Amino acid sequence: MSEYSERLFEVAQLAHAELLTPDLKRTLWFFKDLLGLQESGRRGDSVYLRAYEDYYHHTLKVTAAQTAGLGHVAWRTTSPQALERRSRALEASGLGEGWNEGDLGHGRAYRFRTPDGHKMELFWDVDYFNAPPERKTRLRNRPEKRPLHGVPVRRLDHINLLASDVAQQEAFMRDRLGFRVRENIKLRNGTTAGTWMSVSALVHELAFMGDRTGAKGRLHHLCYWYGYPQHLADISDVFKENGVQIEAGPGKHGISQAYFLYVFEPGGNRVELFGDSGYLIFDPDWKTITWGEDELDAGIIWYGSSLPAEYFMYGTPAVQKPKEATAASTGA
Amino acid sequence: MSEYSERLFEVAQLAHAELLTPDLKRTLWFFKDLLGLQESGRRGDSVYLRAYEDYYHHTLKVTAAQTAGLGHVAWRTTSPQALERRSRALEASGLGEGWNEGDLGHGRAYRFRTPDGHKMELFWDVDYFNAPPERKTRLRNRPEKRPLHGVPVRRLDHINLLASDVAQQEAFMRDRLGFRVRENIKLRNGTTAGTWMSVSALVHELAFMGDRTGAKGRLHHLCYWYGYPQHLADISDVFKENGVQIEAGPGKHGISQAYFLYVFEPGGNRVELFGDSGYLIFDPDWKTITWGEDELDAGIIWYGSSLPAEYFMYGTPAVQKPKEATAASTGA
Amino acid sequence: MSEYSERLFEVAQLAHAELLTPDLKRTLWFFKDLLGLQESGRRGDSVYLRAYEDYYHHTLKVTAAQTAGLGHVAWRTTSPQALERRSRALEASGLGEGWNEGDLGHGRAYRFRTPDGHKMELFWDVDYFNAPPERKTRLRNRPEKRPLHGVPVRRLDHINLLASDVAQQEAFMRDRLGFRVRENIKLRNGTTAGTWMSVSALVHELAFMGDRTGAKGRLHHLCYWYGYPQHLADISDVFKENGVQIEAGPGKHGISQAYFLYVFEPGGNRVELFGDSGYLIFDPDWKTITWGEDELDAGIIWYGSSLPAEYFMYGTPAVQKPKEATAASTGA
Amino acid sequence: MSEYSERLFEVAQLAHAELLTPDLKRTLWFFKDLLGLQESGRRGDSVYLRAYEDYYHHTLKVTAAQTAGLGHVAWRTTSPQALERRSRALEASGLGEGWNEGDLGHGRAYRFRTPDGHKMELFWDVDYFNAPPERKTRLRNRPEKRPLHGVPVRRLDHINLLASDVAQQEAFMRDRLGFRVRENIKLRNGTTAGTWMSVSALVHELAFMGDRTGAKGRLHHLCYWYGYPQHLADISDVFKENGVQIEAGPGKHGISQAYFLYVFEPGGNRVELFGDSGYLIFDPDWKTITWGEDELDAGIIWYGSSLPAEYFMYGTPAVQKPKEATAASTGA
Repeated sequence: MSEYSERLFEVAQLAHAELLTPDLKRTLWFFKDLLGLQESGRRGDSVYLRAYEDYYHHTLKVTAAQTAGLGHVAWRTTSPQALERRSRALEASGLGEGWNEGDLGHGRAYRFRTPDGHKMELFWDVDYFNAPPERKTRLRNRPEKRPLHGVPVRRLDHINLLASDVAQQEAFMRDRLGFRVRENIKLRNGTTAGTWMSVSALVHELAFMGDRTGAKGRLHHLCYWYGYPQHLADISDVFKENGVQIEAGPGKHGISQAYFLYVFEPGGNRVELFGDSGYLIFDPDWKTITWGEDELDAGIIWYGSSLPAEYFMYGTPAVQKPKEATAASTGA
Repeated sequence: MSEYSERLFEVAQLAHAELLTPDLKRTLWFFKDLLGLQESGRRGDSVYLRAYEDYYHHTLKVTAAQTAGLGHVAWRTTSPQALERRSRALEASGLGEGWNEGDLGHGRAYRFRTPDGHKMELFWDVDYFNAPPERKTRLRNRPEKRPLHGVPVRRLDHINLLASDVAQQEAFMRDRLGFRVRENIKLRNGTTAGTWMSVSALVHELAFMGDRTGAKGRLHHLCYWYGYPQHLADISDVFKENGVQIEAGPGKHGISQAYFLYVFEPGGNRVELFGDSGYLIFDPDWKTITWGEDELDAGIIWYGSSLPAEYFMYGTPAVQKPKEATAASTGA
Repeated sequence: MSEYSERLFEVAQLAHAELLTPDLKRTLWFFKDLLGLQESGRRGDSVYLRAYEDYYHHTLKVTAAQTAGLGHVAWRTTSPQALERRSRALEASGLGEGWNEGDLGHGRAYRFRTPDGHKMELFWDVDYFNAPPERKTRLRNRPEKRPLHGVPVRRLDHINLLASDVAQQEAFMRDRLGFRVRENIKLRNGTTAGTWMSVSALVHELAFMGDRTGAKGRLHHLCYWYGYPQHLADISDVFKENGVQIEAGPGKHGISQAYFLYVFEPGGNRVELFGDSGYLIFDPDWKTITWGEDELDAGIIWYGSSLPAEYFMYGTPAVQKPKEATAASTGA
Repeated sequence: MSEYSERLFEVAQLAHAELLTPDLKRTLWFFKDLLGLQESGRRGDSVYLRAYEDYYHHTLKVTAAQTAGLGHVAWRTTSPQALERRSRALEASGLGEGWNEGDLGHGRAYRFRTPDGHKMELFWDVDYFNAPPERKTRLRNRPEKRPLHGVPVRRLDHINLLASDVAQQEAFMRDRLGFRVRENIKLRNGTTAGTWMSVSALVHELAFMGDRTGAKGRLHHLCYWYGYPQHLADISDVFKENGVQIEAGPGKHGISQAYFLYVFEPGGNRVELFGDSGYLIFDPDWKTITWGEDELDAGIIWYGSSLPAEYFMYGTPAVQKPKEATAASTGA
């Protein structure tokens, strides 16, 4: 018993993500008019958004850019002390990039890159959203009234990134930041094809899947949460009638048990909507569930809509598809 | 920033609860035939049960007794080291009762009482449920197949206890064990009428509400989780047709946003079924949401079925109702 | 077998209803902004509305008036010949009022009154809604796109009227117009306290309940249909946050198995929202299900939210409550 | 107006269907243990079943046979007089086969074949199911309690047949029996590739789709109704864990707006489960919605799971697949 290695409790949550878009206007239409996100600020080429049950200033920063893709991912630590400790650990890893002065909605942040090159940051000080009187609700644990337009998502859920070496990403996030590896996929050749990690009861706030194009630092998708299956049907109706391309879903993943819907926002980034809670993990000594290559059919789709071959190839920024990629392969 | 008090991460989860029943046979019918719990063992006057997505040996121990009520509540710590540290903290509190040798399904446990007298224990070593071949499922994150009888609940969610002094309970669990106070109710006279606490992203694994009868150590209810609203409709049908008394629901609480259903199992204990996820808390610096006396209508019922006056009085073991209790009062 | 009395198939459907409101502006806000009805025309003091899956020009006519209440109820016949036959039958009944020239959205109509004085009409010629190009959907059996505002209802469902003599209304609608009596309530004293009638597979397009105030010709409620339980939760959120009074629900009636929600639109009329399909009747020889006085608890509420005493008294136009009415009585 | 052709109201409903199975034992396991059908009788090689909200003696007759397929389809007329009239019309059509003495659960029936050879019958006299005391429910419009095993379906919904000449079937059912053609598919070459017909507010109790194998008289699927989307998720879980092959779904058809799930019962017949109400038709003068070849993608799948190529080829009894059939073709 004395040898049990105690876990880190240093990163608390996915705080926000920044998406790049070549079509800022239509990307905002997608997130605001269809998904009911609220605008909480603008600065330079960026617009800051949040869902009606997000507590902070924003959970999404949309920035005009030449191509779609990931700007950065921000994590809030469990304490200011944890922020200091993690910044030192990241610095020691060689992937730290130092402190910045913060942004609209939060204080100073420590920047770093994953081994694959995704930009990330940690911070502690944050601005809470404070609804103007006409948007305040009597439901005191809800930051503001449920919007009356679109099919409004409730909160940011997780982010999924493509990486050339998934095992390396997994080890980095686990060892340096305390993420627990909840589920992963191991191919027969020993490669880790995907990993789902979390710092909370969620199965994942962060996932990595193998990027078979050989590219680095790409985004697979960002996910907002509904929590009720019906809302995936409602928003599917809306997407079909308003020219938004549904890639896959609604359907149920085996891995994470997520009831999913994948669409492309007009800027080209893939967005997931989450229609239930999947399952939650409270076991402090969770043993990673490893799916083998011959179990993947149930792991990827438990029931409902299947995933097209493109799901395993396309990310942002988009890259040329390599010749060896085949539709039949779904392992990464 | 240097003054920020870092949180304890020592208690991981509600592991199980023991209910006492004067009608073991019919209590088992309720949990097994209607709610789909599976039996995992018997010892003496006790039967051990678990839901199909509970990972450990059991989450419910039902013990034959003269009257209904709470046997004990068991928490799993985040590590064996945390167990040692918390046992010392409890011992120092004067409410520790020492170690026992464990029970079917888990190892040695440290026993203590809350200030109000509820029996609790902490443990680390636990037996995982291992399904026999015919009950194994290809959904590898699910411990066994979904049962084919009843409307099966998925996992244990939380427990709600009555206490003569809620504020005292709240402080004890917060300070000695690291529970965060997510929401509470404060009356005009300064009394804390209810408190909802958790050690995870759930709004509560543990709640206390004021016991207006003056009794001590009583149970208000134990809650199992469905996660889907439809299942509260399904099980309501089943309860109405099989002679189980629905006390209230389905309806939506403001506090915790729980979509609830309350029933009495045949032994007399109140059981809640949870039909969605409410909201989840990831903010590491969550500020307790305090509901005032004039906000309680929205806090107690956001929409749907109201709660009868008995809801605020009845607990197990049942006691004589004091003369001063009135149906109009809902504050505690 | 030769004695079997063949049914009339002369009335096809509830085509529209007219509501009177003393607050036209806010009544329109309720129906348009919250329930997603679309405006299809204005004439005089009236505004014409329809839900996005209503096929005709309108299903609701809202007319400014001194007090809330029912304008009229309109039924479409199964053929032009049926319209002629029914007009003659109504004329023979002594309750016919002759032909009018029609209204926006439909052709000539035969007006009549129920024995209790509710204004009704029958017509055949109708204008179909034709969506402008930007509102057309690729879902060809849907008249237009699902709206992006509010929680949009899908179609008109039924109307429920108060009457001083329910049995008399029931006989009139059955014998003169061919309504089938699907369910009713008979009190011990022989009085029919409520009746649910239809001309289609729905359990009711029309109900009458006893008006214990002694008033005549009043409206109990008009109902629009969602068809999905989640939408009652969604619209409940919206109502709670936007100052609309929820009278009762969500809950499940035994009679008709309707999953219901009752609210008051700002003009004072009660509106029901229907969250599933209840059950449907295809048996051509359906025997009326008669609920006795001691079965009413299950008949009125199968599970979920109960009904307040006011539910059985309040209608529009509102009248003084008679002294003998008591909260405990739910029979009519 | 005088030229308007009045509709027939002579056929009331789909009363039951007979399925043939080469594996009676496992077919019964599927319908009874998983879908919660109740057995109401046995005779010879046949077992009679009904869902818990089916009112008659049975809605499904399962008969042991060499190969899977359709036994017969039975319709109840709107009156005994209608039965006589329709028997004469069928006799005149040359497809009548005369009267039989009835079967367990219903009286004398008039047998006929569709032009494609599917056996059908019409009857009037029927036995109502009468629950034994322990299965009676207080919900008086429900024939018996909701079963406690499986994920119980509520009632029979519709049947879908393959035919070599769909237009011929459509005309026969419309002209001889009064079915309304609600939706159909017309290919560029003028062929009717599918038709959906009903005698009630349902979009269809009967559909025909083109049989591209050239075979005659085959079954595509039989459908039972849940009415709630969640139940398709629940039963999908059950199917995945119990070795039942899900062919497609859950997903939403454009045509009929049905929320569907298709599976193969162990005997090989395709069974559909219906998870909502689709839309209902009350317009007495409904104009057939005709989907063109280039609109079929939205018509066949509005959102959710797609259909495999086999969906358009496989029926029972199974036949050799012709060489010209291709996966890309979805028109029939």
